[in-house]
Amino acid sequence: MSIHLYGYWRSSATYRVRIALNLKNIAYQYHPIHLVKDGGQQYSEDYLRMNPSGLVPAFIDDDEDFTLNQSLSIIEYLDERYPEPLRFLPNHALDKARIRGVAQDIACDVQPLANLRVLNAITELGGDANARTAWAVKWIEKGFTAIEKRLQTRAGKYCFGFDVTLADIVLIPQVYNAKRFGVDMTKYPLIASIDENCNELEAFQLAAPENQPDAT
Amino acid sequence: MSIHLYGYWRSSATYRVRIALNLKNIAYQYHPIHLVKDGGQQYSEDYLRMNPSGLVPAFIDDDEDFTLNQSLSIIEYLDERYPEPLRFLPNHALDKARIRGVAQDIACDVQPLANLRVLNAITELGGDANARTAWAVKWIEKGFTAIEKRLQTRAGKYCFGFDVTLADIVLIPQVYNAKRFGVDMTKYPLIASIDENCNELEAFQLAAPENQPDAT
Repeated sequence: MSIHLYGYWRSSATYRVRIALNLKNIAYQYHPIHLVKDGGQQYSEDYLRMNPSGLVPAFIDDDEDFTLNQSLSIIEYLDERYPEPLRFLPNHALDKARIRGVAQDIACDVQPLANLRVLNAITELGGDANARTAWAVKWIEKGFTAIEKRLQTRAGKYCFGFDVTLADIVLIPQVYNAKRFGVDMTKYPLIASIDENCNELEAFQLAAPENQPDAT
Repeated sequence: MSIHLYGYWRSSATYRVRIALNLKNIAYQYHPIHLVKDGGQQYSEDYLRMNPSGLVPAFIDDDEDFTLNQSLSIIEYLDERYPEPLRFLPNHALDKARIRGVAQDIACDVQPLANLRVLNAITELGGDANARTAWAVKWIEKGFTAIEKRLQTRAGKYCFGFDVTLADIVLIPQVYNAKRFGVDMTKYPLIASIDENCNELEAFQLAAPENQPDAT
């Protein structure tokens, strides 16, 4: 078995998949795709053949025909295919839906609005560096405000009780991103404490952007 | 059993859930939340209690405690909880991941970039009506270009072979949206033919925005 992850150290979607692979104790080969160098290596012919969206990550399990994209889809694949040593989702449909809901609050309504290609589009619209930051912070804060409320009656040490779930895997890279943009995390005490608890785990530490071979 | 869907006729995330409910033959009560009237009814205190994100849809199955948000999460809940008469996802982890990937290509990387709150933010940045449309079209075309390639070796009558899946449920509302923005669908012949095939099914027809009680 051979697992390949194509991504970028600072891409929070790649970061999610790294956490998931580490939690599953799956060894993998990491192939850096530099999102800025060479006009963006994600737009090279070779990469687009793997992932025509020109976005990271891309993921290959075993065979070239098995290329997957979309981090949430990759993570659920890993969860189904490699159930040990822990599951990212519980069995009950309702509990699953709540956890997926929080993961999607970030993966649909926060991260895609504040990633590199969208911030570049803001610049093209005439926005300066401050406008780019304000744009990113706006969506991150909207998302965190909702999630902080949503988790109020659910959280334990992690987003949903005392087991790490898909929600934590998606939340922590967004907190990393929020800090980069200067978001004041004291406004979100529950998220901040979940972030702290997750970052005590080796699987999260090893997945952190600054610990990747392509970090600069 | 009593199912409640809170949404808006033109919201493509709500439209997805309507299609899913119809395909499952589930009767439901539809509660219109007008996204513009009264400064946006999704920001009312009552609605925010159900869904602190202030986004539609929200979904309730049976009991007030069971409020769900995020359309993909709601649709997978329906699929697990009500497996008959058809499943939206196959059994194999890899096939599931590919289908979820296409659904997320839209639900993460297209729709959230071109919805009402983001288009309003473009106006706040100084963009006029043309800039709003150009912004929406840009992300829709990027997404459709990738999906058209991705489905090339997979599509049958629908996105993945000859059964309707989660991918179709998410794709068709995005095509509706694309047409509103004047996207030339002849550039995406595969997506256009899947759209046509899906819209022959009653479940899709009944879910269409113009057939909702709150359509104006």
